[in-house]
Amino acid sequence: MPDGRAFEGPAPISGRYRGGMTVRHRRVMQVAAGGAVTWRSDDVSTEEPLEIRVGEVSLSVTMRTPGDDFDLVAGFLITEGIVRDAAEIASMRMCPEADAATGELNIVEVTLSASAASRELTPRAFYMTSSCGLCGKASIEAVRTRSAYDVAEDPLRVSPELMFGLPTSQHSAQRQFARTGGLHAAALFDDEGALLCLREDVGRHNAFDKVIGWAATQRLLPLRSHIILASGRASFELTQKTLMAGIPLLAAVSAPSSLAVELAADSGMTLIGFLRGERMNVYAGHERILRA
Amino acid sequence: MPDGRAFEGPAPISGRYRGGMTVRHRRVMQVAAGGAVTWRSDDVSTEEPLEIRVGEVSLSVTMRTPGDDFDLVAGFLITEGIVRDAAEIASMRMCPEADAATGELNIVEVTLSASAASRELTPRAFYMTSSCGLCGKASIEAVRTRSAYDVAEDPLRVSPELMFGLPTSQHSAQRQFARTGGLHAAALFDDEGALLCLREDVGRHNAFDKVIGWAATQRLLPLRSHIILASGRASFELTQKTLMAGIPLLAAVSAPSSLAVELAADSGMTLIGFLRGERMNVYAGHERILRA
Repeated sequence: MPDGRAFEGPAPISGRYRGGMTVRHRRVMQVAAGGAVTWRSDDVSTEEPLEIRVGEVSLSVTMRTPGDDFDLVAGFLITEGIVRDAAEIASMRMCPEADAATGELNIVEVTLSASAASRELTPRAFYMTSSCGLCGKASIEAVRTRSAYDVAEDPLRVSPELMFGLPTSQHSAQRQFARTGGLHAAALFDDEGALLCLREDVGRHNAFDKVIGWAATQRLLPLRSHIILASGRASFELTQKTLMAGIPLLAAVSAPSSLAVELAADSGMTLIGFLRGERMNVYAGHERILRA
Repeated sequence: MPDGRAFEGPAPISGRYRGGMTVRHRRVMQVAAGGAVTWRSDDVSTEEPLEIRVGEVSLSVTMRTPGDDFDLVAGFLITEGIVRDAAEIASMRMCPEADAATGELNIVEVTLSASAASRELTPRAFYMTSSCGLCGKASIEAVRTRSAYDVAEDPLRVSPELMFGLPTSQHSAQRQFARTGGLHAAALFDDEGALLCLREDVGRHNAFDKVIGWAATQRLLPLRSHIILASGRASFELTQKTLMAGIPLLAAVSAPSSLAVELAADSGMTLIGFLRGERMNVYAGHERILRA
């Protein structure tokens, strides 16, 4: 933590890019054409539960890749609207009861600041409103009401060439570390396309939370004029997280969903899908793409 | 429903393979090399929230692709251990308050049979036990304790050639309907590799629940000697769902996680990853793969 506040307890496992902590070795039988069999040791991405507790309340249990757990928790609290920024987190600590078998720590206890503690603890309740039943429009309204930041007026403008370069930056950063092929990635870039933070996780929402939580602890929120890149699809949930962090541009290598497009369009966010090679589809916020 | 029990209310939207109901049209700006811009109408996968209510309890809100909603709910109830099979679901009905804008129905109310109604409603609490803190081993134990079916003794045996053919079957079935490229798929096969059921969804756990729910309403549970294929990664959650349906073989086109491998190995399930072309990796339950 940059400002020395009390994030107590053993440091969370920072397995991110350090040999082997996010992977486990498994004996695997490889079968090829004709039934030819070879046995070898294979790297498998680690998946473990993480429980997030705020005071006495168990807020969430998510399956994640261990590592950067305080970032994950900070990002979760921000993107679920529990806190507005890292200043509202008074402390985080790892519960000391580690899993006997793996030595891993899977419970983070959070103490909120006085201002945040008065807010209601209702993550995921986002989707629900009683006004018009349950529908996409209600989900969008709930997120927009809850978002601390407005991205509609963000002055970010990007050239197509800058956008086309982002997946390559992400992939070359991933290649240095990739061992399993089983992880989702999220990458944060500035307005010149410089890679600021890359995180991988078995859950793509966790990769987003880790990136946003990292930025929060660096006091970078709201992430005005930044870009976030998802290695897969752009869902409503990822679009929500992007908005909650104040990021004006979400790009995805694969397709967006209808509700992702609607949330982006309604909130003035730029949403790009199928960003592959020298092509992309712009689904919302076209005005941020510079034309030749 | 095959036996005419009361699944009341308007039929759930069966957009599955019927023109356009699972996609929405969006005006999209396509940008190519050199910044060349073309505008066209693009199909985007529909994503809408679905709330599952059991009696007065709101059990879950999930983002899903509308269609096959009763199957999705039945599958969810089974794979979360709320009911053992479709016989424990007395009725399901769509709440009549449709979203005014889209006409979609996003709330399903379930009435359980007397035997199931006495059980505790604790989905997702799976992961948590107090005995040893929170850890992968506890998560596995919780699932195994809850599973109604044992797959360890399942006599299924498959040849590598049969397995190599499954992704092709899945893809050719998907190609007939694919319009957006944005969906996860789950496919159920019998022990001869015949495709019985294919479902697509913006959420891969929903695709699994739709397939398993379909099988439940066909009175096929437990799915002894069946195979389920995931279009992406094999996570703990998908392995859990596979076990809860009594399926002895889970295959995935991409990588498994460590906890997926551990759950499969501990419960006697066969887990295959990277099933691509004429190759596959067998992570657990190798004895079910016939050798030349």
